[in-house]
Amino acid sequence: MGKKYFYLLIAIILLKGGYAQTLNLMPWPTEIKIGEGQFVVDKTLKIGVEGNPDKRFHPNLVRFIQQLSKRTTIPFDRDSVLISPVDASMVIKISRPGIVKLGEDESYTLKIDSNKILITSQTELGAMHCLQTLLQLLERDKDSFYFQRLEINDKPRFAWRGLMIDGCRHFIPVEVIKRNIDAMAMVKLNVLHWHLSEDQGFRVESKAYPKLYLMGSNGEYYTQEQIKDVITYANERGIRVMPEFDIPGHATAWMVGYPELASASGSYKVEKFFGVFDPTIDPTKKETYRFFEKLFKEMSHLFPDEYMHIGGDENNGVQWNKNPNIQEFMKKNGIKSNHELQAYFNLKILEILKKNGKKMIGWDEIFQPTLPNSIVIHSWRGREAMEDAAKKGYQSILSNGYYIDLFKHASEHYLNDPLPKDSKLSPVEQSRILGGEATMWAELVNAENIDSRIWPRTAAIAERFWSPGDINDVDDMYRRLDVVNIRLEEAGIEHIKCREAMMRRLCNGSNIEPLKILLDASEPLKGYKRHGSKPYTTEYPLSRPVDAALSDAPEVVRFRLLFNDYKKTKNKESYSQMLDLLEKWVNNQASFNSLAANNTALKEVVTLSDNLMELASITRKLLIQINSGIRIDDIEGDMLKIQINRLKTPVAEMELPLSTLTLDMINLLKDGNKME
Amino acid sequence: MGKKYFYLLIAIILLKGGYAQTLNLMPWPTEIKIGEGQFVVDKTLKIGVEGNPDKRFHPNLVRFIQQLSKRTTIPFDRDSVLISPVDASMVIKISRPGIVKLGEDESYTLKIDSNKILITSQTELGAMHCLQTLLQLLERDKDSFYFQRLEINDKPRFAWRGLMIDGCRHFIPVEVIKRNIDAMAMVKLNVLHWHLSEDQGFRVESKAYPKLYLMGSNGEYYTQEQIKDVITYANERGIRVMPEFDIPGHATAWMVGYPELASASGSYKVEKFFGVFDPTIDPTKKETYRFFEKLFKEMSHLFPDEYMHIGGDENNGVQWNKNPNIQEFMKKNGIKSNHELQAYFNLKILEILKKNGKKMIGWDEIFQPTLPNSIVIHSWRGREAMEDAAKKGYQSILSNGYYIDLFKHASEHYLNDPLPKDSKLSPVEQSRILGGEATMWAELVNAENIDSRIWPRTAAIAERFWSPGDINDVDDMYRRLDVVNIRLEEAGIEHIKCREAMMRRLCNGSNIEPLKILLDASEPLKGYKRHGSKPYTTEYPLSRPVDAALSDAPEVVRFRLLFNDYKKTKNKESYSQMLDLLEKWVNNQASFNSLAANNTALKEVVTLSDNLMELASITRKLLIQINSGIRIDDIEGDMLKIQINRLKTPVAEMELPLSTLTLDMINLLKDGNKME
Repeated sequence: MGKKYFYLLIAIILLKGGYAQTLNLMPWPTEIKIGEGQFVVDKTLKIGVEGNPDKRFHPNLVRFIQQLSKRTTIPFDRDSVLISPVDASMVIKISRPGIVKLGEDESYTLKIDSNKILITSQTELGAMHCLQTLLQLLERDKDSFYFQRLEINDKPRFAWRGLMIDGCRHFIPVEVIKRNIDAMAMVKLNVLHWHLSEDQGFRVESKAYPKLYLMGSNGEYYTQEQIKDVITYANERGIRVMPEFDIPGHATAWMVGYPELASASGSYKVEKFFGVFDPTIDPTKKETYRFFEKLFKEMSHLFPDEYMHIGGDENNGVQWNKNPNIQEFMKKNGIKSNHELQAYFNLKILEILKKNGKKMIGWDEIFQPTLPNSIVIHSWRGREAMEDAAKKGYQSILSNGYYIDLFKHASEHYLNDPLPKDSKLSPVEQSRILGGEATMWAELVNAENIDSRIWPRTAAIAERFWSPGDINDVDDMYRRLDVVNIRLEEAGIEHIKCREAMMRRLCNGSNIEPLKILLDASEPLKGYKRHGSKPYTTEYPLSRPVDAALSDAPEVVRFRLLFNDYKKTKNKESYSQMLDLLEKWVNNQASFNSLAANNTALKEVVTLSDNLMELASITRKLLIQINSGIRIDDIEGDMLKIQINRLKTPVAEMELPLSTLTLDMINLLKDGNKME
Repeated sequence: MGKKYFYLLIAIILLKGGYAQTLNLMPWPTEIKIGEGQFVVDKTLKIGVEGNPDKRFHPNLVRFIQQLSKRTTIPFDRDSVLISPVDASMVIKISRPGIVKLGEDESYTLKIDSNKILITSQTELGAMHCLQTLLQLLERDKDSFYFQRLEINDKPRFAWRGLMIDGCRHFIPVEVIKRNIDAMAMVKLNVLHWHLSEDQGFRVESKAYPKLYLMGSNGEYYTQEQIKDVITYANERGIRVMPEFDIPGHATAWMVGYPELASASGSYKVEKFFGVFDPTIDPTKKETYRFFEKLFKEMSHLFPDEYMHIGGDENNGVQWNKNPNIQEFMKKNGIKSNHELQAYFNLKILEILKKNGKKMIGWDEIFQPTLPNSIVIHSWRGREAMEDAAKKGYQSILSNGYYIDLFKHASEHYLNDPLPKDSKLSPVEQSRILGGEATMWAELVNAENIDSRIWPRTAAIAERFWSPGDINDVDDMYRRLDVVNIRLEEAGIEHIKCREAMMRRLCNGSNIEPLKILLDASEPLKGYKRHGSKPYTTEYPLSRPVDAALSDAPEVVRFRLLFNDYKKTKNKESYSQMLDLLEKWVNNQASFNSLAANNTALKEVVTLSDNLMELASITRKLLIQINSGIRIDDIEGDMLKIQINRLKTPVAEMELPLSTLTLDMINLLKDGNKME
């Protein structure tokens, strides 16, 4: 190959790379080739479908047209937009009806030419994913809306791509569940794992055992009609709904109406606090299994998915240890530990589930050699347990690393791969890793702010489950996430809206801007630090400033991206934008003080605002030094670190993530080599 | 009385007036006496109820506590906040269970002392109104949340205080209806008038005539379960739900499934356009009445309210005139006009309603001497018709002047009194004016933005229906409305949220600020000007900039209040705030241009942004002249007026309300007397 051609080729690749970088797809497709030119979207758009899709496809196509219409403001005519594929500018070919179940074909191809769009897929599930891709591909310029010319070949990396919502610790109403299903569909997730029973509530109407919800839910539960409605809604969007009934622990709410289920006599109250509690189902009584026979028969009919999740986590064994009948039973049957007793219980439950045509899945703790490897292990405690299970022939899914209730950065979840490149598992063992689930435990969320805890981070996790493992550039993920954020709102998610409404309530009619500037630079304490910081109960209104702060402080994310760019390129524009941000934070103190002066609701974050001011002014000084190449010595650096560590101290359950970058700057300034 | 005492008294009254002015109640109570001191709200609050309320009271009290908790961030303990009234710090005395029907006692008294709150009411409906008053009274300072010491005696001026929602021209989902019911309760409205059939849709599931909704709704209708749910929801909040089935005109959607109802043969399609259409029910066929016998029997059971609204408006008579059978029938029965024929029809319908225990209500057009005065006239065309009806012994309600679909200012609706001071009606005739209804017709609203069309203006109308007629200070109303606005959001209304989400969609991920500044200074064209400006159909996505603009441009309202204050007091602070606003508008042009540069969705408002810049700079110049006392001569004034009239020209269905104030300024500058 002549040198000239070689350089031309490089130029084309760079150009294409350049194009690709500006696309805002999430999850990123398996294969993409970008061309030149555009397909312009205007009112002449005509769509034709051929082949044999399931009937769920039509409403999805109608919603696609409506969303396209909303965004472009074009009033497509419902009587003429859908026509015969022969004359259509957008043709969708679907081979056969899909079934919403594990392992169904969800692949698709998309070809966009300047006057034709062609979608092909085995099942309508693939085509539905493709419609979501198209909505993400819609771009605009001065004169029109358009799709970039390109070709996409796309299919999921993992078959099980889930989001768990805990509807128990705080009740999450049906309309919130539904809009989250829409958002899941947007980012190609396909399992809603619905956590339906807990110490704090039994949330399902049961006709077999009505005291479960009548006495165990404080009046907040899902009716069977609502559940059917949610399942239909999800199925129409290609999403499975798997219920979880957590047994034998985490079951206090069951015992309010049915104390005979417990391993200790007495009366029970719906739990208000959070944690691990003693009430545990008695696995030694025949009546227990008669109860589950009837209940799981009812629930198996209500939830048509082939999997049923039985929880099984965090049984502390206290009630079992104290109950002489249970101890006697164990001795008599040669059961040596509580873990073995739980395995005995699980085997009995497994029989019941099998009878009802269900496959069993449960958390790590159900993994016991006596259980057949038809069960699925849901790993929450660690990747090792999951790999161990895979080696022993069990299928499994991963949630460890995807606990979105812990306020961690999107990047941390994003880089957590169920099957990392260096995995020691054999191909057969790897094939047993079905996928994963983001888990939204609900101690510190409620209907008002749950969307802002799930999204946008779960979009990054969705990419991990769908896209090839080597799509893992964190900065590019954050860049795309910023756009996906707005698309999630279009899908109905209230993650942006709810925060500002919460701030308006806190500010009581005053301009929220100073509070927003503060919260956009602050993050809730991570891990379980918040849970332990107060005697939280289900009655806490979750309406404090921390409840409106995000796991990824958006303005600090922006600062970090600018700083990373600046370090690489010494870009002046990035430098000046960073200075603007720092100045905004410094100046915010005065405005915030005047906002908070007469408002007891904001009192607890005045110190946080002071700290942000101080931290931002130190950071500004350091940044200017970096830009001018003026180093600092070790002593100065250590002094600054002490000061920054003070400013990092949590205030009102929040911290200032800028401090990490400030510390980086000090290290950079101390180490001359890194500065050039 | 000695002079000294006299002045002291004046001082106290002024002081009290000063206190009262800072209260943010809406509707304003009948009688209020402000004291000194406060009742502090903290976690020691204990509430006790005595007497005999209906069971609907308890959930209202629980919601009150939850809202109080949200706002104060205090986690009230559900097991201990409600106690025996003997030990409670807040006592509620209710004499008897109320019934949610026209004329029920809704009065209450409230006495707040520094350590005790006492509420008394005949029925729980009064106490529920009082809880809303309390939520509006909650204030805060640096250290605590509190209620001002005061006494209130309150009762409604009119018994019928309604909001009509048209769920037909655009379908309005149940969750939107429900949150609007919550907002209605907040401002003491008590009738939801649900407009359920139209040319564009028949929205109720009917088991008697299923083709009504199956063929007449494009799949968007309320199931009977949903309707029952809404009625229960409203009833729990003290609100009647009155259905409207609009006949014999506005009924195209009925004829899609049942063409035999029409006065012309042929097949019918659900209407997409808006206006007055020919399809009209045939009043001469026996089958018509058999149909209504069965349908209204079903609907009378579904909707328990004692009133049923039969519409009756805008029958254009075209089908009747053209149908020889109908002409023959009229001749044979001595019916001389279409109006008389409609009266004949109404009498037959009245019989059917009576048989089902319902009272009939309809729009102006049903008013005909042959109808008994047991019917209620709903006046939309003018106050005269209503007064005429009252004189002839008919009861009536007023909607003329409360058409909130026409994008008019809150002040205009606010000053429209069903019974103005100078009313010529006798006391007996006056007693026939039952009240009024705000009407939210849905040509140009949908589920996404309807909240921002109804609220906050309807709160001002609610005050008109509830408060004494002499509470009519427009500036004070706007001041209070600003706070009520945030409270409405707390009640669940998405009027603020939806606008910003719409702007984010329009701006496609860019900072919305320049668009927000533009839209906060712009208003949709008023009256029917927008309806006629485009061939609007039900398929328009209503996602353009105009759809996110408000009837009262909030920043212009602010400017007007500042200007009114400045004219009175020459207040320097007001002057400087006005200059800031004007500068913001002038500077916005550049930011807006850069936002719109690559965004076709914003192209249509670039000129509006240019005009705002030009108008604001003229206004700034005039304001500075006013402040310096530099007049302008007639010629200069006339030239400016020409320029301003050009800048007033509608752009993208919007106009700039600042122009009115600018014109005022010119007049002020031309007329030296007014300047001092």
